Amino acid sequence: MEYKRVVIDGYGGDNAPVEVVKGIKKALDNINDLKVVITGKQEELLAIAKENGLENCDRLEIVDAKDVITNDDTPTVAIKTKTESSLVKAFDVLKNNEDVIGLVSAGSTGAVLTGGFLKIGRIKGVSRPVLAPIMPTIAGTPVILTDSGANMDCKPINLLHFALMASKYSEIMFGKKNPKVALLSVGTEDHKGNELVKKTFPYMKQIGINFVGNMEARDLLSGEFDVVVADGFAGNVALKSCEGTLKALLGILKSDIKSHTASKIGYLFMKGTFKRLKAKFDYDKYGGSPFLGINKLVIKCHGSSKAESFYQSIKQAYTLGQSDIVSSVAESVNNLDIKIEE
Amino acid sequence: MEYKRVVIDGYGGDNAPVEVVKGIKKALDNINDLKVVITGKQEELLAIAKENGLENCDRLEIVDAKDVITNDDTPTVAIKTKTESSLVKAFDVLKNNEDVIGLVSAGSTGAVLTGGFLKIGRIKGVSRPVLAPIMPTIAGTPVILTDSGANMDCKPINLLHFALMASKYSEIMFGKKNPKVALLSVGTEDHKGNELVKKTFPYMKQIGINFVGNMEARDLLSGEFDVVVADGFAGNVALKSCEGTLKALLGILKSDIKSHTASKIGYLFMKGTFKRLKAKFDYDKYGGSPFLGINKLVIKCHGSSKAESFYQSIKQAYTLGQSDIVSSVAESVNNLDIKIEE
Repeated sequence: MEYKRVVIDGYGGDNAPVEVVKGIKKALDNINDLKVVITGKQEELLAIAKENGLENCDRLEIVDAKDVITNDDTPTVAIKTKTESSLVKAFDVLKNNEDVIGLVSAGSTGAVLTGGFLKIGRIKGVSRPVLAPIMPTIAGTPVILTDSGANMDCKPINLLHFALMASKYSEIMFGKKNPKVALLSVGTEDHKGNELVKKTFPYMKQIGINFVGNMEARDLLSGEFDVVVADGFAGNVALKSCEGTLKALLGILKSDIKSHTASKIGYLFMKGTFKRLKAKFDYDKYGGSPFLGINKLVIKCHGSSKAESFYQSIKQAYTLGQSDIVSSVAESVNNLDIKIEE
Repeated sequence: MEYKRVVIDGYGGDNAPVEVVKGIKKALDNINDLKVVITGKQEELLAIAKENGLENCDRLEIVDAKDVITNDDTPTVAIKTKTESSLVKAFDVLKNNEDVIGLVSAGSTGAVLTGGFLKIGRIKGVSRPVLAPIMPTIAGTPVILTDSGANMDCKPINLLHFALMASKYSEIMFGKKNPKVALLSVGTEDHKGNELVKKTFPYMKQIGINFVGNMEARDLLSGEFDVVVADGFAGNVALKSCEGTLKALLGILKSDIKSHTASKIGYLFMKGTFKRLKAKFDYDKYGGSPFLGINKLVIKCHGSSKAESFYQSIKQAYTLGQSDIVSSVAESVNNLDIKIEE
């Protein structure tokens, strides 16, 4: 069998390394032609692998890395100097092995992006690589929000590239034909928005994607859109506002139920409803966010990721890494034939 | 008794004029020294007033206005030419009568803002007037988010003025001492943010407010902050994302409960919980958003406002209109003694 290899940072995220290994276990159980390389403290990882029934698994390879990059490290400094860290070692594995098709890490966002940029490199022609997180919607379909924090201040060309890349991503990852792409704005009318949105709007119609116009943030989770494009600041605000509201609401429900007997009884009958709600709004079900616009596939997982999310991210790396997403993106970006006024 | 008068646009919003009149009824019942002026089609209003037991009320005055400004009208044109509209007539009443201390309208946001600007005028020294909507938080306290859509692209001086004005508003409206003011950003660290946030940050410490630093959008509803400052684009994205998520979640809960018998039973037991949740996240309980930075008080209500929201908005106009908010704002803005690099 011809195996595909994915490398995973064994010490990235709040729940590493135990949940990372559990995620790997699930991935190896479910994907027959997958091999996983994990980086981190060899002895610890061996012990955890054993606990998870992976001690003799020839599809799991451990690369020793004694150091760890934390959120307190300055990304550029860390990537350049912490050469023995689990993240840098993972990038080395990705870079130096053609059959390693993707990297997964739940480590510091800044460090993962910097690593992707410095170690793997930008696709020629892409103005700004971008994170493209996937959010659940009420329709049950995913929506890709890009950018969501990597590029704070943007120009129209950046947003156009985000739109092209995420559109390709939606096609490949979710099998969408002509994914619906919207611009995040303050109203649905064509003329609504800040300077950036107003300048970008007319070009969105000229780049060969299925641009459906401006969108209000209140419709982000409606399921009407496959891709939503924003600068990194506004995208981050949208993403975090949705997450925060969800958390606030569920928190209030939980504590209110706990402190009222009738509600406790009611909860027993409504467990199914809450289970379905949780499943629908489960941010883990799609795994991490791909870092689009660099020469190999890098998936950034949420810092709080658990086994299921690591599993989904490995699956995503496995699927996307085999696709032609890098060359597709390169092609669509380089074929862009418009003159942009800044 | 010395009465305070508030004027209300009888034909603004989706539920006008019936819900407007109902809101007035509640306000007159609850506030003894209040008089209300309503603008709109006299005969219709008389009939509705009668239905609500207000036919002989000497504290309700109707000013005839045959025309209505809609969302399809261009704000500037409408304010200048639709002189017989309920909104323009309301602005005339506010402008020409010293004892009319505030105006309430659920009409087109653009028209209300333009009306405030053209008819009432900007406070001298205020760089940009701003809407300051109030959002509920999980702590049960309100948070003021400003700007939220009036000013798309901002400079640091605008954000500083928003902070000063909303801080005064929080003090006067909610009796907060040293309200906690945060900058909406993408992380809590001092250096996080886009160019605007990074430039504004150091000045926020020098303007005599209780600036507590950068805030992530996920903490908007935490109740840890009294005032959150943003440019109009980002603020609108935050506001609408929260509203949209809330609506999406409750919509899913509702439809799931409806289609599962066990959940229907559970719901009967949990009614109290949902009632309390709804009360906590009720956007209507604080009324509309004040338009800060103009020479008299204007409250913009949500287009979907019902009686309770109109009542709260009238109460807000009554409270704020009697305060020294206009002179306070003028004073704090004009005493600002910092040199800003743009």
